[in-house]
Amino acid sequence: MVWKPPAALFEAQTGLKAIFSLGAGVNGLLDMPSLPRQVPLVRMEDGGMREQMIEYALYVALRQLRRFAAYERDQNAGTWQPRGARTRSKLRIGVLGAGALGGQVARALADFGFSVSVWSRTPKRLDGILSCQGDDGLDHVLANSDLILMFLPLTDATRGLVGHAQLQKLPHGASIANLSRGEVLDDDALLALLDSGHIDEAHLDVFAREPLPEDHPYWRHPRVRITPHVAALTDHRMAAEQVAAKIRQLESGQAITGVVDFERQY
Amino acid sequence: MVWKPPAALFEAQTGLKAIFSLGAGVNGLLDMPSLPRQVPLVRMEDGGMREQMIEYALYVALRQLRRFAAYERDQNAGTWQPRGARTRSKLRIGVLGAGALGGQVARALADFGFSVSVWSRTPKRLDGILSCQGDDGLDHVLANSDLILMFLPLTDATRGLVGHAQLQKLPHGASIANLSRGEVLDDDALLALLDSGHIDEAHLDVFAREPLPEDHPYWRHPRVRITPHVAALTDHRMAAEQVAAKIRQLESGQAITGVVDFERQY
Repeated sequence: MVWKPPAALFEAQTGLKAIFSLGAGVNGLLDMPSLPRQVPLVRMEDGGMREQMIEYALYVALRQLRRFAAYERDQNAGTWQPRGARTRSKLRIGVLGAGALGGQVARALADFGFSVSVWSRTPKRLDGILSCQGDDGLDHVLANSDLILMFLPLTDATRGLVGHAQLQKLPHGASIANLSRGEVLDDDALLALLDSGHIDEAHLDVFAREPLPEDHPYWRHPRVRITPHVAALTDHRMAAEQVAAKIRQLESGQAITGVVDFERQY
Repeated sequence: MVWKPPAALFEAQTGLKAIFSLGAGVNGLLDMPSLPRQVPLVRMEDGGMREQMIEYALYVALRQLRRFAAYERDQNAGTWQPRGARTRSKLRIGVLGAGALGGQVARALADFGFSVSVWSRTPKRLDGILSCQGDDGLDHVLANSDLILMFLPLTDATRGLVGHAQLQKLPHGASIANLSRGEVLDDDALLALLDSGHIDEAHLDVFAREPLPEDHPYWRHPRVRITPHVAALTDHRMAAEQVAAKIRQLESGQAITGVVDFERQY
């Protein structure tokens, strides 16, 4: 069971039956040349992270729905200005990545009454939620979302996926939250569109380099909210129970979920 | 049907069968000497406000649970510092006032997994929620809440109820949100305890004077978040339907809910 192991670990371990990642994203492991490819690599599918992701996403969605960012700017300007009310069904949320975490977040937000669509590699059956795929599907979700929540794994296909052209497709005043991997989002493009006012606010929990370098413009940007990669922390007890259950299943010859496909890279 | 009517209105109207307030708080009407006391005064019990109050309360609760205020301060200081995770059941929320709005908010927060207690004039039966009354009950709720949500009507009994002695009973680092009437909370006491660091953050939607005067210290206080009395706006369609239903009930001789007790002042 590993999280950011030293390269030497896999060279010394020759009798492995499986490798369990204690995080949901395995891009760091896949980048290690010493990672054995002949044993199953299993990613964390919940481990207590699902409920935490729902909390973070719901916070961002309520902040956008009720215009708390705008009211903070009003307060800084000394302005008393009531803004109109919106019902949840009028706030359109696009979830990029609909796997073990993104799919559950989409479900929770839709159940709470928001208007939700998802974009993912394969079609998903999520009751009351529009499921989109491919380039056209991504364009459709972007053009019709007041808030984008990113839950994409980092792969060759997703690196830099959300760039200037994609962000510009968002409606004026939309917000974005990245809760998966920094490299999926083009930082320069995001900063340019925050500065132009096209994007209202960005909630960033993950970054291409972590800790975020001291001189990065995100730190001081008034429309950026940073958290230090804490959107979802693996709960040790829950993770242990889930890994133990999967070991029992493997030992008895059963199939398990969460096995990484080296081709698709997650 | 009225909201902040001119005093002359009631002097001119002599054939009234009932007066419907379009807001939940009727303290402004009760302060009018011309308000007739012989006809029922009916306050708005939901009118679309319940769901909006739940949204605002849930936002504040998630902000406290996930330490977003602390992370904003970290960001301003250029500090990358992950903080420990808490589960919802460990966040203790005290709801002051458990009527048509506060009671529903308490229910929604408890259903979402938070640990909730309420304080109200009369005992409430709310499954899984501790119901407290009286001075001792208030002390108990204050001493055992990481977040206080105020949903109290403004009456002679609640004016200035939450003062220095009460706020000091909160655990160090607790937060507070006032979504009912400004006069229930002692502004000077709150400012003193925010400055001392005893209270972490205050979310204020209502004020003794509205709009909040330009020179009020709340505007510039880094630990105060202001919204301009928008926590819950009456939805006209929903309000019309609910008032119409009550008129039909009154006309057919049935009892209706929401009739103001002039003695208790709500």
